[in-house]
Amino acid sequence: MESSDAAPRFEICIAVASSKHSPGSDDDAVASYIKALKNTGLVVEIEEGLDSIRFIKVSLLIRFCFRLLVAFQIAAPIEVVGRTAEKLNIKKSTYLGLEVPFVWEKRDAFVRQAISNSLFTWTEKYSCMEYLLYSVANEKDHPVKFTVGESSELELKPGENILAVLKASEVVKDVFVLHDETTRNELLKGWAMNFKGLTSQPVDAIHAYFGAKVAIYFAFLGMYTQWLVIPSIVAAFFYYKESRPWGTALPVVLSVMTVVWSVLFLQFWKRKNAALLTRFVWELNFRWGVSLDRSEGPEEAENIDFAAVTNEGGIQAGRIHEMDINKLQKQAFQKKEWLEQLKSARNNAIVIVGIIFVQLPFELAYAHMNKMASYEVLRYFLTVIYLLGIQVFTNLGGKIAVKLTKTEHYGSKEAESDGLIYKVFGIYFMQSYIGLFYHALFHRDFIVLRHFLVQRLIIAQIMSNISENVVPWFSYLYAKHKATNRHDEEHKKSDDKKIRSPVEEEYLKPEYSSSVGDDLEDGLFDDFLELALQFGMVTMFACSFPLVFVFALINNLVEIRSDAIKLLLMFRRPRPREAASIGAWLQIFQYMGVVAICTNCALLVCLYDEAGQWNVEPGMAAILVMEHLLLLAKFGFKCFVPEEPAWVKAKRARRSRLQEKYTLQILKDGKHRDL
Amino acid sequence: MESSDAAPRFEICIAVASSKHSPGSDDDAVASYIKALKNTGLVVEIEEGLDSIRFIKVSLLIRFCFRLLVAFQIAAPIEVVGRTAEKLNIKKSTYLGLEVPFVWEKRDAFVRQAISNSLFTWTEKYSCMEYLLYSVANEKDHPVKFTVGESSELELKPGENILAVLKASEVVKDVFVLHDETTRNELLKGWAMNFKGLTSQPVDAIHAYFGAKVAIYFAFLGMYTQWLVIPSIVAAFFYYKESRPWGTALPVVLSVMTVVWSVLFLQFWKRKNAALLTRFVWELNFRWGVSLDRSEGPEEAENIDFAAVTNEGGIQAGRIHEMDINKLQKQAFQKKEWLEQLKSARNNAIVIVGIIFVQLPFELAYAHMNKMASYEVLRYFLTVIYLLGIQVFTNLGGKIAVKLTKTEHYGSKEAESDGLIYKVFGIYFMQSYIGLFYHALFHRDFIVLRHFLVQRLIIAQIMSNISENVVPWFSYLYAKHKATNRHDEEHKKSDDKKIRSPVEEEYLKPEYSSSVGDDLEDGLFDDFLELALQFGMVTMFACSFPLVFVFALINNLVEIRSDAIKLLLMFRRPRPREAASIGAWLQIFQYMGVVAICTNCALLVCLYDEAGQWNVEPGMAAILVMEHLLLLAKFGFKCFVPEEPAWVKAKRARRSRLQEKYTLQILKDGKHRDL
Repeated sequence: MESSDAAPRFEICIAVASSKHSPGSDDDAVASYIKALKNTGLVVEIEEGLDSIRFIKVSLLIRFCFRLLVAFQIAAPIEVVGRTAEKLNIKKSTYLGLEVPFVWEKRDAFVRQAISNSLFTWTEKYSCMEYLLYSVANEKDHPVKFTVGESSELELKPGENILAVLKASEVVKDVFVLHDETTRNELLKGWAMNFKGLTSQPVDAIHAYFGAKVAIYFAFLGMYTQWLVIPSIVAAFFYYKESRPWGTALPVVLSVMTVVWSVLFLQFWKRKNAALLTRFVWELNFRWGVSLDRSEGPEEAENIDFAAVTNEGGIQAGRIHEMDINKLQKQAFQKKEWLEQLKSARNNAIVIVGIIFVQLPFELAYAHMNKMASYEVLRYFLTVIYLLGIQVFTNLGGKIAVKLTKTEHYGSKEAESDGLIYKVFGIYFMQSYIGLFYHALFHRDFIVLRHFLVQRLIIAQIMSNISENVVPWFSYLYAKHKATNRHDEEHKKSDDKKIRSPVEEEYLKPEYSSSVGDDLEDGLFDDFLELALQFGMVTMFACSFPLVFVFALINNLVEIRSDAIKLLLMFRRPRPREAASIGAWLQIFQYMGVVAICTNCALLVCLYDEAGQWNVEPGMAAILVMEHLLLLAKFGFKCFVPEEPAWVKAKRARRSRLQEKYTLQILKDGKHRDL
Repeated sequence: MESSDAAPRFEICIAVASSKHSPGSDDDAVASYIKALKNTGLVVEIEEGLDSIRFIKVSLLIRFCFRLLVAFQIAAPIEVVGRTAEKLNIKKSTYLGLEVPFVWEKRDAFVRQAISNSLFTWTEKYSCMEYLLYSVANEKDHPVKFTVGESSELELKPGENILAVLKASEVVKDVFVLHDETTRNELLKGWAMNFKGLTSQPVDAIHAYFGAKVAIYFAFLGMYTQWLVIPSIVAAFFYYKESRPWGTALPVVLSVMTVVWSVLFLQFWKRKNAALLTRFVWELNFRWGVSLDRSEGPEEAENIDFAAVTNEGGIQAGRIHEMDINKLQKQAFQKKEWLEQLKSARNNAIVIVGIIFVQLPFELAYAHMNKMASYEVLRYFLTVIYLLGIQVFTNLGGKIAVKLTKTEHYGSKEAESDGLIYKVFGIYFMQSYIGLFYHALFHRDFIVLRHFLVQRLIIAQIMSNISENVVPWFSYLYAKHKATNRHDEEHKKSDDKKIRSPVEEEYLKPEYSSSVGDDLEDGLFDDFLELALQFGMVTMFACSFPLVFVFALINNLVEIRSDAIKLLLMFRRPRPREAASIGAWLQIFQYMGVVAICTNCALLVCLYDEAGQWNVEPGMAAILVMEHLLLLAKFGFKCFVPEEPAWVKAKRARRSRLQEKYTLQILKDGKHRDL
């Protein structure tokens, strides 16, 4: 992406509400912050925009009186990023074959990215820039005063971070990532608008532009869609051949097919995931328990440092226990570990109890009353109440889940976000499926069930796909309109509408944020949630309505494109996030695979029972036997498809040989005494 | 165990059928072999024994005419072991904190064993000695002739291994491991005869004397027995309080308790196992996919070497793909991987089909006919036929399983042995439980079920415990008697029976061998099999008869001691074997935990149905719900108990930090170019 000669590209923007006559005085907060940034080596450029004489009117209530909204674009030359990476001990692959904390002097030894040929991945670069932005603090031991604009003042306590203070006092309105026009246009053409590609995803390009987490999401979405093709064809064929689908063995065949399909799909996904990780260069160390998160805090570091002991006393015979963990440390570890486990068990219990005793009755009550309501009007009324109700539940539940998650102590931000996902997914699971179960199992009302499925899969999902794009688009248009209109009122007769800079455009767009816990998850949460709920509908109810496969396929083909457009055009460019896998979502998908076995069997019982062609007793027994056989087969299939391709294993074996070689060399040189 | 000054201890014995006047001539096969061994640095001492003028009579049919059975005791000085370990690239922990292939010059840097303070574990030492014994070969490019005894000759082709040829022509009767009297007596006192210790096991001492596999077995047996105590007390209490155990909720309580107990037990065992591994110093690298087996053969090495490329071209920008696996290699890997998977799937299918279509009908036929037989005589007759039948099945099945396993390509000997265990266990599983299921589920005959359980758990198991010791003891006594008697006939009037040397005593004892696949498994197979079948009976049938816990506990308290005595006194000292876990057995125990959920629920259905107090319909439904809840809970518990203690994780994190440090140093020194 960058070469050392070319001018660095602006990648982060700080939007500041500043006084009109931007003062150069030393005690102006923004000016001195920008100066400090320049000192760290970052390239800062001012872009005045949003001629906000009008804009002020909107923000009149704010304490300070702003005249202008100024955007500072930040770019980082490669050396600045490199030095910061060295300071942050960012680990990178080398041509030695192993990862090593980055060293700027030895930069030629580090592996460059495949697509962009740059030294750092976008995620690494972003972390470095972010670190620099937040590294400016008051380093004196007394408070420092700054002026803000012309009349206001700001006090910075010792050690306080200036950007955080500026954000808190709303001088800095926002810090956000900028799109890169060239790459964006390439991606638009080659990916979002590429209707020929069907399900294939340019994973490397996505990884280079959005980071690993988004790349893994699209890889998963692409593979899932691809895997939907064959069952769709089979199911559609069966559906049109059989005029009366239940009454034959078709539902049994469909159930078995669905279960086998879902297990195989997830196993093969794990393989693909393992292969993907070796493609994104930072790969393997994540898999072996080393945290992704570099901001581990002192506590974690201390835990690891327990054995940084007596290295001077060093090499003496029979002294393994000095290098080892002593008994007290072991006990301390164990005590802490179990306290954490208990706390997380308690939190999970709270969530589960809440769902079962608050949400479940509510859902059932609605489903029941809706079924029983004799007047259409009453039904609409109920639905309105219900829709309001689930809004409240989801919001409240989300908030509680975030709070509970924060009380737990996870090793990394990844794990923390996973903990939240599990909790929140429980709520959505109930919300989405209880109604379906109610109709299927209690009333054996397969017509309503089908209606529900069609409605959810086509109308709801495609509508939501559109709205995902339309809502942010309109919110952007509205913001633009407001700003432009006011501008027009000012210069009433001027016909030339001011052409806005890309930075301004981005500023007006909404953020790619999640419906729960903004600081733990971004918009990917909602995208994955949608997929997971769809996967649940496909696997759990396939036997009662084969066309779910087809609908899901159509929906996903749309989803791939709409998600891509959303990320490229509708939202600000999301902050890049690292990830080694789809994390909690994989567990959730697997869990639904197991639930699907049970629900399919339960549905079969209902189906055949209603048709009356089988006697209940042998039929029941046969279905129960089938259930257990399927559960057994699930484990069998897991054994058959290894989670890690053989060549990935071979790669790891090679790494461990290298490690031995290097360690041996260190031993021979006696270097370890200096380290 | 050894210090460099002390005389090395004799640890391996080669028993040779030699001519009486042991010739010193150069072309005698045995003499020149011994000479070659001495050249490698091994200490060899001749112990003439088993004055076998009589003994010859037994072996008259053998091609050569032997006069004497001579025992060569082999001992290895520490330097010989060290040099060999260096040659074999045996990896060992260092005070640097990482493992490194052993280097004799740097021996002070390597971690010594905790208990014995020796540089090598017993397993490592044994591998080195074994390597040396088999390293003597005909290195000339023409065949070499040796005389054997006085009249026979032996030709050695170029490259042929002399010990292998001597063994094949029965000149060398046996190569076996010698006990160490001091340590054996200590273990006898402190372990086998220690009745106060109840369930505690001196794991480190066992590890030092028998190697890791045996140590892990006893650690498991000890923990399992310990975990049986509480459910035994609870179950015994319930049993004596309730006069009529079914008819109340007791069986339900028992089922739930058993399932929860088994899941928790296995999870905590995994933790203990992880902790054990850090205690046995060679620990962590096994867990991360590096094979235990050093004799990987050229194929495996080639697989790993694929990327030992262009290291001279080295450090250049943008060239990751040179260090990487190219597409062709990847395809080759994948093709091979899938062929292997298919082959192993086919073999498993053969085993499963065999069990279901051959063994199952046989077992059911016996159970049915036995139930229906009206005359006592007929029943005995049937039992005789049945017993003969299962003998045939087990032998045949074992042989087929061994053959199938050998066609598959496993990464290591460990994995190969696991593959065999799975296959053979299927046969034993059917044999042990089908009868029980038949009585429980088809006839709802709980009296017969209880009889069976009592019989299997007390009579069969305790009897087998005793016989495990008695049979080898008598076989030893018989061998001794024969040898001694013949000696007496010779010196008819001499009253002083020759006092035999320990080496002779050992030679007369049987080997610690398994009932299947001697080359893949040793006697531990049978010991684990016994435990697994017992665990199955406890977990699967607990709800119908609470006392199974108590019987299992009593049996295991006996088992611990009898197994210890067996290993120390009744058998030759087994060859040490490395292991990182109980391997396939853990999977089998877990699998039985799942089966137990289903059988317990099925038994409950039968129990309550027979008692007639519940209506079948709601009762059935409740039990089915319970089954699914228990299955769910099983996964929940797995999440609650982490498989690896936090301090083990911390240790691993530290290792990876060290690795980075060393690699960075190598990078800075530019040393990698020389490596």
